[in-house]
Amino acid sequence: MTAVALGLDFGTESVRALLADADGNERGTAEANYEHGQIVRSLPGPDRPLPPRFALQDPDDWLAAAAVAVRAALTEADLDPSEVVGVGVDFTSCTMLPTTNDGTPLCKLDRFADQPHAWPKLWKHHGAVAQTAHMNRIAAERDEAFLIRYGGIIGLEWLQPKMLEAIEDAPEIAAAAEVWLEGGDWFVWRLVGGEADTLPRSTCQAGYKALWSKEEGYPSDDYFAAVHPDLAEAVRTKLPGRKLAPGEVAGRLTEERAAALGLPAGIAVSAAVIDAHAAVPGVGAAAPGTLVMVLGTSSCHMLNATEEQFVPGLAGVVEGGILPGLFGYETGQAAVGDAFDWLKRLVGHDSFDSMSADAMRLPPGADGVRCLDWLNGCRTPLMDGSLRGAFTGLSLNAGPGHLYRALLEASACGLRWIVDLHRENGVPIERLIATGGLPHHNPELVRIYADVLGEPIDVHPARQAPALGAAILGMVAAGRFDTVAETIEAMAEPVPVEARIAPNAEAAALYQTVYQDYRRLAETFGPTSPAGIN
Amino acid sequence: MTAVALGLDFGTESVRALLADADGNERGTAEANYEHGQIVRSLPGPDRPLPPRFALQDPDDWLAAAAVAVRAALTEADLDPSEVVGVGVDFTSCTMLPTTNDGTPLCKLDRFADQPHAWPKLWKHHGAVAQTAHMNRIAAERDEAFLIRYGGIIGLEWLQPKMLEAIEDAPEIAAAAEVWLEGGDWFVWRLVGGEADTLPRSTCQAGYKALWSKEEGYPSDDYFAAVHPDLAEAVRTKLPGRKLAPGEVAGRLTEERAAALGLPAGIAVSAAVIDAHAAVPGVGAAAPGTLVMVLGTSSCHMLNATEEQFVPGLAGVVEGGILPGLFGYETGQAAVGDAFDWLKRLVGHDSFDSMSADAMRLPPGADGVRCLDWLNGCRTPLMDGSLRGAFTGLSLNAGPGHLYRALLEASACGLRWIVDLHRENGVPIERLIATGGLPHHNPELVRIYADVLGEPIDVHPARQAPALGAAILGMVAAGRFDTVAETIEAMAEPVPVEARIAPNAEAAALYQTVYQDYRRLAETFGPTSPAGIN
Repeated sequence: MTAVALGLDFGTESVRALLADADGNERGTAEANYEHGQIVRSLPGPDRPLPPRFALQDPDDWLAAAAVAVRAALTEADLDPSEVVGVGVDFTSCTMLPTTNDGTPLCKLDRFADQPHAWPKLWKHHGAVAQTAHMNRIAAERDEAFLIRYGGIIGLEWLQPKMLEAIEDAPEIAAAAEVWLEGGDWFVWRLVGGEADTLPRSTCQAGYKALWSKEEGYPSDDYFAAVHPDLAEAVRTKLPGRKLAPGEVAGRLTEERAAALGLPAGIAVSAAVIDAHAAVPGVGAAAPGTLVMVLGTSSCHMLNATEEQFVPGLAGVVEGGILPGLFGYETGQAAVGDAFDWLKRLVGHDSFDSMSADAMRLPPGADGVRCLDWLNGCRTPLMDGSLRGAFTGLSLNAGPGHLYRALLEASACGLRWIVDLHRENGVPIERLIATGGLPHHNPELVRIYADVLGEPIDVHPARQAPALGAAILGMVAAGRFDTVAETIEAMAEPVPVEARIAPNAEAAALYQTVYQDYRRLAETFGPTSPAGIN
Repeated sequence: MTAVALGLDFGTESVRALLADADGNERGTAEANYEHGQIVRSLPGPDRPLPPRFALQDPDDWLAAAAVAVRAALTEADLDPSEVVGVGVDFTSCTMLPTTNDGTPLCKLDRFADQPHAWPKLWKHHGAVAQTAHMNRIAAERDEAFLIRYGGIIGLEWLQPKMLEAIEDAPEIAAAAEVWLEGGDWFVWRLVGGEADTLPRSTCQAGYKALWSKEEGYPSDDYFAAVHPDLAEAVRTKLPGRKLAPGEVAGRLTEERAAALGLPAGIAVSAAVIDAHAAVPGVGAAAPGTLVMVLGTSSCHMLNATEEQFVPGLAGVVEGGILPGLFGYETGQAAVGDAFDWLKRLVGHDSFDSMSADAMRLPPGADGVRCLDWLNGCRTPLMDGSLRGAFTGLSLNAGPGHLYRALLEASACGLRWIVDLHRENGVPIERLIATGGLPHHNPELVRIYADVLGEPIDVHPARQAPALGAAILGMVAAGRFDTVAETIEAMAEPVPVEARIAPNAEAAALYQTVYQDYRRLAETFGPTSPAGIN
């Protein structure tokens, strides 16, 4: 009997359960949608319209969908549940919610069911624009040292801005909240039970999305007090729990949850991990120096390193942020698949087929058309969501294929900027692995990435790298191997030789100019534009 | 019996004949297509494919189509041909051809019928790219004073580059050519007959398209010799004739042409005028200080002034260039209707309707989307066809309406730059009249022009302003009035009060920023870009 681990991958619309054994075989997988999906127009039940920029979820959906998916995966795997030895959980982030001390979400209390701020705020909830700006202003004025770990900017989607939004816009909810926490941590807490003061909080979410570091903890009380006295109090008293790296044991599965999921009670449960970050073990990136690129509507690039460097513009460096014992670096591009979809809509096409064929017939450089891919702002390295994109070099001969090729090339240039930034600051990158949905749908993209970087890219064949990564972290928590690296090597599939996309030397040479143009455009339209245009 | 004048308006695809009487009544009009239209793929007869960038015409088409159109107009007017007292001719420019000393086009000699360079080169023939660059380089090196009249640049479509193209690429044609001349001058020469050394050459075409000025004549023999010895010889010996301003008498209609056209022999024929420039009298702009904007696929703006100022970037200032006794200033925007059509195609729309409706629902400034309308280069003031356009400020929310509004606004900003340039250099502009096809199809455009300029624009109701302008010049030549101004006032329709588009003060204030952004974009992507991007 081989030990099996369960990975639960909580996405924006659904949860996927994946069962993998210690030999790296996928035994079963199943997906279940959340009944209420993303709650963006009005709350379930009372028809109360939501303000714009709101995106909420129902925590009962997470529990219910997980039960459906796990049971279906067990059935597909034809597995004796007793073979399952560990559970790992990845989750969208920062998806957060207020609860009572016993973990009851405030939205499940009758008196708060019609209050939007009592519900979990999904990662993409953008209600805290003013609060984020305020927190950044105060942090900049005070020259707060913690900013350096985040490339100088607190993100709109992070924990404290969302807390402050409730404090300012729904003070009764903020007052009633006894615990604020990530959705992933809440779910793990439900799995393992226990008191609020020992609830398992992931160093991954805390580090990347809540300004926490292992060395310094949260930013100072003085800082939060300067932002808002109630925020300072909330950070002091309403973020209880233990910090655990992904793969560390959060606890043991309770009888109640074991029954709901159809699993044995008492098995090990790993601390949660951000969904994108779970792809790192999922694609077998056990060693430092491998950049794992999760390419989707936006892109998230993750890298483990043995040393901590503060790199201006990197979104976050977190000790134990991705795997225990290593420094995890996270960077991102704010619009990738989203930008391609936007262009497809703009030019009135139903599919990418003709636009892509036209684009690929053009030479590198798209006949002089250039793009700045900041359609949703610039994440790494400028961390400024207000920046905007551009197309230049347009003539009457420019068609959709020119724009698409320029956009693909811009996305590649954005990636190269990120790779250069790591290396120039002493963070080694020795290998590049692409995963996520996009590389499989859009092989042109990876080809252009390889050519613009001038380096090979391995396209990992796993379609479910985060779910597998979560299962691997469950196996790590179960302690079936001596080390994290051994677990990953045993369970993750290596990239087959034929999945390596090698750069074309001629194209790579031509792209030098395109990259220089991209950097000049970024200079021109960046926040410190000498031309003052943005 | 009222005196009637005939205007012949030679366009790119067809000629229009318009009969107007001295009281300003349009009596009849008719249009006839050229049998061979634009010759761009292969020559008529022998199936000889043409190089790219070639655009030729058949001179027999001009004669034949004019005969058809004039007879049809006379029939429509139900007019005794003896009432016609004068003929005016406007023509595309620089459309040019080589002939023998008796005016026979070389392409009509059997031995040259299969030689592309023996045929008339249409204004849009762009075969002389290398020759234009060479002429500009030599002129710049020699610091030639004539450049100042052309904003510093010799145009790709002008006479001498097209001559040099034949000298270099078809020396046997260049050697056989005894006369080089504009299509409009050739047609007028056919109407009035006579020897080559007295053929009537228009000061308008010579001034705007052949580097000639009343004071200085053509550039020096030294300059042309430095370009190419054969070009110097051709300018010395193959540009014979008298220079006459539009409205001056080129001669009297010959018996032969009178018979062909169905008109009385001996009536006055005016010197030719460029088609766009004929709109100036056509819309009644007799007085200095009225900017006449001919808005079409590209835009041509014309202005008469009492004084000569050398304005960097103005395409040309020519004494007697538009009307006798005044200095004519010409400026232009290289892509207007063409750019709108390009955008419509790019976004896959069949009509402008939905894009235009979306655009007009947006506030001035198009939600931050900006455009540089250099889709076909920048004519005034940078005179650089190699420059390219841009869209900036793009987010995932930007749709076709945003791009269209930004493009309309950019076109307006380009116009404002031109207006400012005149005034800042001491050339008064007191009134703006819009004509051409675009204002009637695209009322939003004129509205945005008025708002961005912050001044009223009169939309002239004439659909055929150039043809009427040509008829007015025919009447001027016939001498039925004491002065040119009197002729124009008697014959051109004034703009009705209701056709004045007044600016909206609120919008005009908002457009200050948009215009500043436009100028910064022009700085950024112009030929001397500090960012080096173009």
